[in-house]
Amino acid sequence: MKRIGRYTLELETKPRILASAALGGKKESEGPLRQDFDQTFSDTMMGTSSWEQAEAIMQKEALGLAIAKAGITAEDVDLVFAGDLLNQCISSTFGLRDFNIPFLGQYGACSTMAQTLLMSSLMVESGAARIAAAVTSSHFCSAERQFRLPLEYGGQRTPTAQWTATASGSAIVTNRGEIQIEHVMPGKIVDLGIKDAANMGAAMAPAAANSYADYFKDTGTSPQDYDAIFTGDLGKVGSSLLEKLLLEEGINIAGKHKDCGLMIYDLEGQDVHAGASGCGCSASVLCGHILKNMRDKSGKYKNILFAATGALMSPTSTQQGESIPGIAHIVHLRTCQDLT
Amino acid sequence: MKRIGRYTLELETKPRILASAALGGKKESEGPLRQDFDQTFSDTMMGTSSWEQAEAIMQKEALGLAIAKAGITAEDVDLVFAGDLLNQCISSTFGLRDFNIPFLGQYGACSTMAQTLLMSSLMVESGAARIAAAVTSSHFCSAERQFRLPLEYGGQRTPTAQWTATASGSAIVTNRGEIQIEHVMPGKIVDLGIKDAANMGAAMAPAAANSYADYFKDTGTSPQDYDAIFTGDLGKVGSSLLEKLLLEEGINIAGKHKDCGLMIYDLEGQDVHAGASGCGCSASVLCGHILKNMRDKSGKYKNILFAATGALMSPTSTQQGESIPGIAHIVHLRTCQDLT
Repeated sequence: MKRIGRYTLELETKPRILASAALGGKKESEGPLRQDFDQTFSDTMMGTSSWEQAEAIMQKEALGLAIAKAGITAEDVDLVFAGDLLNQCISSTFGLRDFNIPFLGQYGACSTMAQTLLMSSLMVESGAARIAAAVTSSHFCSAERQFRLPLEYGGQRTPTAQWTATASGSAIVTNRGEIQIEHVMPGKIVDLGIKDAANMGAAMAPAAANSYADYFKDTGTSPQDYDAIFTGDLGKVGSSLLEKLLLEEGINIAGKHKDCGLMIYDLEGQDVHAGASGCGCSASVLCGHILKNMRDKSGKYKNILFAATGALMSPTSTQQGESIPGIAHIVHLRTCQDLT
Repeated sequence: MKRIGRYTLELETKPRILASAALGGKKESEGPLRQDFDQTFSDTMMGTSSWEQAEAIMQKEALGLAIAKAGITAEDVDLVFAGDLLNQCISSTFGLRDFNIPFLGQYGACSTMAQTLLMSSLMVESGAARIAAAVTSSHFCSAERQFRLPLEYGGQRTPTAQWTATASGSAIVTNRGEIQIEHVMPGKIVDLGIKDAANMGAAMAPAAANSYADYFKDTGTSPQDYDAIFTGDLGKVGSSLLEKLLLEEGINIAGKHKDCGLMIYDLEGQDVHAGASGCGCSASVLCGHILKNMRDKSGKYKNILFAATGALMSPTSTQQGESIPGIAHIVHLRTCQDLT
């Protein structure tokens, strides 16, 4: 492992993503990425008696499917990194309790896919794990009633509001596979004072700008060196804010920037206001759409940056009038040279 | 890094704890370990307007103090690992947002001190961080109203109930210092079906037994090889259950076992029923009492095992009638040979 600049870590053994799995709910199965999910389901409860249990099952299914696609068993996995948006991360703990894999719970809100993938790759790079797994999820119904209002209340959503994706993603990291993890950069907490829990994009954009600015500086690269520069779930408001903030630093990502929150739904036809959000949004877009396109060697995405962003607030902090701290972790992925 | 047996990691560069800090509230300052805290405070609100804000300040103070005691600055710290019991870990995110240190939020409930110390040591061992920091906290008032009942309700506590410590602990890990981290073992989720949120000790004891049994097997050591074998906060009920469960596996820890939840308060005089709990309990006992005794070279603790245990439930899962999954991560610490 080599430190590049102040914050970026270069992975010298180049851990690889061996397999990944993406799950989505009904709305996701009707969106533009419908072909990229491994599984979609129309029952919001997934046969359980609560949305929280349904979300836990999504993580269980996503990890199980990724393990199966990797051609390994749960016993082969040395460490699993998982987290989610629910209080005390219960989708992860309840969803994964039967696997008997050493478990390290992560909390990064909607940045969780990048954080768990980053952790998995550091573990494989260092030899702490021969095979590590990353998992996360979100569920519209469990998130909405926890963070905002009871669904039954039928409150009107503001134009800046994002729609929490009902989705899950999982990736298996080891020393073989078609996609290399070249660099990772853990983010810093950035809080510019945004207090509106219905405008998460604006709260998270400064963190994404901070991380990307540091990454380009550390690595001496520019947006033009990559096929695409992804963010997790900034949505419409946060995406334009990010592009503006970076432009002020002399970094132009226009034309390269894609936000998972603007990809998973049809913004015009699916009534989701400013786009999608939730750990499951960037997780399922990465583990489905992005990695699929990296693997198929069409050349669309051979060399990409993936930064998932998290809004680190809670219902309590919002009620207490606190601002919303944001964070963004970056992972640099490349389709293996020996396979292209 | 070398894998020993199935689950244990031997740290070959032997990362060290350079400094640590322990903070406690009023009740903690009146307990048997009162001399071992770096700071205690009598104002439950710490000059803020909420218990949650007070808890965040405890993490800020604990990390700041540990950094100062280490003779470094926040800029020298490459990564901070932190987590807590509050929904979405807001003590960590709000407490640490001003440090500008790359942040990886952890969720392990009361196992957080072991988890963050384990992560910090793996990062230093692998070169991902030159200096890493571990921080956690708990606060009786913020935890009680979130997990159980409003404090104003004045509900009667059951005999198995534990008292969430108002405390925080932080440790700085790097390649120098007086205490070596020799082995770490991330735990597995263990759920034997306990559903009583007022009996966390019983819910967590099976996880502690599982981890310790695997650790002794992996390393080929026995309890007699250590000066003390700590658990985080099993309390009276959980401690006797752990000793019984391990005895069934032929492992006798009697005489060596000490539970932080039974050390921080005077059980007879301080009306805490089955003992203490909370991330801050084992964090402050480790970062205060235990490390202090390891450093003073009296020989009391030269070679110890520290397993903090977590109950991975949420208020929602309890209300939905779910059982309580437990987890226990282990860290093996030794006073440096070259300094004893």
